[in-house]
Amino acid sequence: MWFWGVSAVIFDKGSRTINDACLIYCLPGGGVELNPIPISLYLYILCYTISLQQRGTSAANMSQKEVNGSSHRGKVLTLETMNQNVRQVEYAVRGPMVLRAVQIEEELKKGVKKPFTEVIKANVGDAHAMGQKPITFIRQVLALCAYPALLEDDKFPEDAKLRARRILDGCGGQSIGAYSASQGIECIRKDVASYIEKRDGGIPSNHENIYLSTGASDAIVTMLKLLICGEGRTRTGVMISIPQYPLYSAALTELQGVQINYYLDEDKCWGLDVGELRRSLTAAREHCNPRALCIINPGNPTGQVQSRQCIEDVIRFAKEEGLLLMADEVYQDNVYAEGCVFHSFKKVLFEMGPEFSSVVELVSFHSTSKCYMGECGFRGGYMEVVNLDPEVKAQLTKLVSVRLCSPVSGQALMDVVVNPPQPGEPSYATFTKERAAVLADLAEKAKLTEESFNNVPGFHCNPVQGAMYTFPRITIPQKAIDQAKAAGQAPDQMYCMKLLETTGICLVPGSGFGQREGTFHFRMTILPPKEKLKYVLEKIAEFNAQFLQDYS
Amino acid sequence: MWFWGVSAVIFDKGSRTINDACLIYCLPGGGVELNPIPISLYLYILCYTISLQQRGTSAANMSQKEVNGSSHRGKVLTLETMNQNVRQVEYAVRGPMVLRAVQIEEELKKGVKKPFTEVIKANVGDAHAMGQKPITFIRQVLALCAYPALLEDDKFPEDAKLRARRILDGCGGQSIGAYSASQGIECIRKDVASYIEKRDGGIPSNHENIYLSTGASDAIVTMLKLLICGEGRTRTGVMISIPQYPLYSAALTELQGVQINYYLDEDKCWGLDVGELRRSLTAAREHCNPRALCIINPGNPTGQVQSRQCIEDVIRFAKEEGLLLMADEVYQDNVYAEGCVFHSFKKVLFEMGPEFSSVVELVSFHSTSKCYMGECGFRGGYMEVVNLDPEVKAQLTKLVSVRLCSPVSGQALMDVVVNPPQPGEPSYATFTKERAAVLADLAEKAKLTEESFNNVPGFHCNPVQGAMYTFPRITIPQKAIDQAKAAGQAPDQMYCMKLLETTGICLVPGSGFGQREGTFHFRMTILPPKEKLKYVLEKIAEFNAQFLQDYS
Repeated sequence: MWFWGVSAVIFDKGSRTINDACLIYCLPGGGVELNPIPISLYLYILCYTISLQQRGTSAANMSQKEVNGSSHRGKVLTLETMNQNVRQVEYAVRGPMVLRAVQIEEELKKGVKKPFTEVIKANVGDAHAMGQKPITFIRQVLALCAYPALLEDDKFPEDAKLRARRILDGCGGQSIGAYSASQGIECIRKDVASYIEKRDGGIPSNHENIYLSTGASDAIVTMLKLLICGEGRTRTGVMISIPQYPLYSAALTELQGVQINYYLDEDKCWGLDVGELRRSLTAAREHCNPRALCIINPGNPTGQVQSRQCIEDVIRFAKEEGLLLMADEVYQDNVYAEGCVFHSFKKVLFEMGPEFSSVVELVSFHSTSKCYMGECGFRGGYMEVVNLDPEVKAQLTKLVSVRLCSPVSGQALMDVVVNPPQPGEPSYATFTKERAAVLADLAEKAKLTEESFNNVPGFHCNPVQGAMYTFPRITIPQKAIDQAKAAGQAPDQMYCMKLLETTGICLVPGSGFGQREGTFHFRMTILPPKEKLKYVLEKIAEFNAQFLQDYS
Repeated sequence: MWFWGVSAVIFDKGSRTINDACLIYCLPGGGVELNPIPISLYLYILCYTISLQQRGTSAANMSQKEVNGSSHRGKVLTLETMNQNVRQVEYAVRGPMVLRAVQIEEELKKGVKKPFTEVIKANVGDAHAMGQKPITFIRQVLALCAYPALLEDDKFPEDAKLRARRILDGCGGQSIGAYSASQGIECIRKDVASYIEKRDGGIPSNHENIYLSTGASDAIVTMLKLLICGEGRTRTGVMISIPQYPLYSAALTELQGVQINYYLDEDKCWGLDVGELRRSLTAAREHCNPRALCIINPGNPTGQVQSRQCIEDVIRFAKEEGLLLMADEVYQDNVYAEGCVFHSFKKVLFEMGPEFSSVVELVSFHSTSKCYMGECGFRGGYMEVVNLDPEVKAQLTKLVSVRLCSPVSGQALMDVVVNPPQPGEPSYATFTKERAAVLADLAEKAKLTEESFNNVPGFHCNPVQGAMYTFPRITIPQKAIDQAKAAGQAPDQMYCMKLLETTGICLVPGSGFGQREGTFHFRMTILPPKEKLKYVLEKIAEFNAQFLQDYS
């Protein structure tokens, strides 16, 4: 047999970099001959050799059908042959707890006896499902848009008709059944820009930087799609708070971005500390390429409202470290605690002067699903992009165009949200009253929840300054922890599952959002009507007492 | 200096597989020593060496800031540093032609003189934008759902109220502003299943297999996400027709699936031939792992309606070759040509007997955007999954839950589509009349378009048997081809761009859908109102004559 050697590399032992490479000929007679080659050629040969070897292995060990994953005896698509990135995705807000809650509802319908009569889904911020009534003006405009014959109906107020006509004029063929421009209907984007300007004390907003989206989730995932690339150590990393809203971790898993955790400080009311950001970033740079920093303000699931100073610090940090900022501000109208004010990242950025406002890339997200309207089902949302490279903006527009457009009824709803009745208009009084009532009710329930939970032995509950959730720290006895671990369950998942089975109350375990090792939490929305919320708070306290006793 | 060689590989020249590997010591005195090592260790060393070399290069040539892609002097996100898979995405239906059309509209508004007074967007199947009026019954139900106070209004017919009440009863808190279950509202999925059963002559459909989606596009991309995985030769390949609807190529590019082209036979009215499927599959198996076969029936952009025999052949092929079938059937109600009937893949599959119906994995897509309703803006859609592995179905449900749910107004609209007025109900006569009028008008325009284009010198136009587009083959003189190529443009893109600038008519060049090398086409929707369509057809004929003359 005649052999030939492919390559060899010479290392300098100290620096461990490649200094030289050569081809080696193993001569039939037993001698060896070395021929120097460029390092680039050596690397090319390495890659080629690996690819040959991989092909060789698969070809050798599998039949053709198996290579093609298409054996006609089994399924094409199985847990093993599906996209494993998708398989790894977790989304606790609609996870196993909710699946079990739905099963229990079915069991109740079938007459199965339970120690309760209904399932209370306090796992998700779904205001209308919890009995909150839609804002009249919003729904009047939507009905007019859906069925324009109603524009002739005297029962509808003129300001609602005015809004509906403006929206319909922006639609192809004056129908919300036409596709819109992929970025969203132009006149609605202009209304969004005006709203932002007003909110931010006159800082300009350009409708060309507004993208209407299918809820905020869609816009967040779209931005992550643009950002995430690279392999190994150059793979894009994205910083997210812990606890986080699990859309972020789910999207990062699916897109194979590197999740970089920074921890909020529970003892400082879930405060965000730049020192912690820096620690987290420095550690991440060892293994990936951090490029974006996500902030949720007001916080989900943690309910804190960030101070102006904190936002300034974050912006300064992002500039110093060259990070794109993603500001999830969908709870911007949900601020309850005295002394707390919502500051948009956009406003603070521009108040910091051109040194910052002309440099830092910022994307801010909003939604029709939260705030006082709670119109989750319409999947309305927008993002404003600031300082985005114009070429990247063109790519963003192209990417969203593949899905044609976001739902036009959701766009219309967003228009009403940013362009509500004004003083002097016929719907102003009712609208203002309904809006204030929703927010006052939420503020009261935020306070009630905090006080109630802080009276439960073993609970520690930060103030619900904003958003619509509480995330109390709970105490789980060691005996319960051991039992959960033996069953392969997170201890707070076991706690929540037992609560569900005992009381019908569906919460999300803290492990679904991330939490410091050794601490346990759950997320509960404060949305149930006051009397039901009181019932829920009592039942949780009772359950907790029993749980502590059972595992003491 | 003391050197050590890392490795060497011994090839057998004939088989080109690795037979042996060894470490090589280059001794200081000049001698060489070989030590055999396992091949696995050799490959490990190769990989490690490559990673070291990559790190060495980057570390040597870049500062730490640059390694992290986060130099604070430039943008974080640029054309170079963004996700290159997204950058490569192309979507012609809303591509450069449409961007220019929008610019021209702006110019016209500003008073710029043009040889025409309006832009006619015949590039996209957007019925309402082209003046088609919404179906009254559909919009009545939607208005009732949006503003339930109207349920007390005598002007609304009882059958519309019945539908609205059924939908609202399926919603959390009886509001379409609540999130639905991620798979869609249960009672609507049941209505969809009943509709499918009726359509398919009683073949059972289970609502647990129905997923409501944000238009069909969303569902198609979701299925592709589940399917696409693997690397190199094991990377998932997906077979799509050429010409195709460019959502498929765009999604495959973004998800890095391998696009496998099979060609429709233009000379046989865009027929689908199993021989061509086999040729395409065999060639693809050399470099990827084909796992799915997509069919669009009725065809987009090609307008053919497949025969029952053809569908049977495709199903047999899919079974033999172990391919999952994705049937894009959004034009199922758009069939015009005499003798043509829509056969659903589901129905044919079940009629072929359990040997097929219990084995072949099939996903079928439908939408509210096409057919007689043309309600694109609502982004309603569904998919039915057949024979999907239950574990994969659970993964699918989890994946869609990350986005919470599809727009509930689109779900409601889908419910009306699958559950229209019945004989004896008050809206039946009007609904039936409106529906028939839309479809008769489309049928007439399909015929008109075919005849008109076949009278244009150099055009060859297949019958528009179904869907809502024509895809005529056009003749482009060599001189024009040369000029386009010199300008780096596809020749049919140049043709369409000149048409747009001359007449204001916006079409999509055939190159955006794929076509046989050396042939040229464009896609035009037949949706414009008849008089406008006649104008469009005349203008295109005039332009074409001038174009042929200019480049003869």
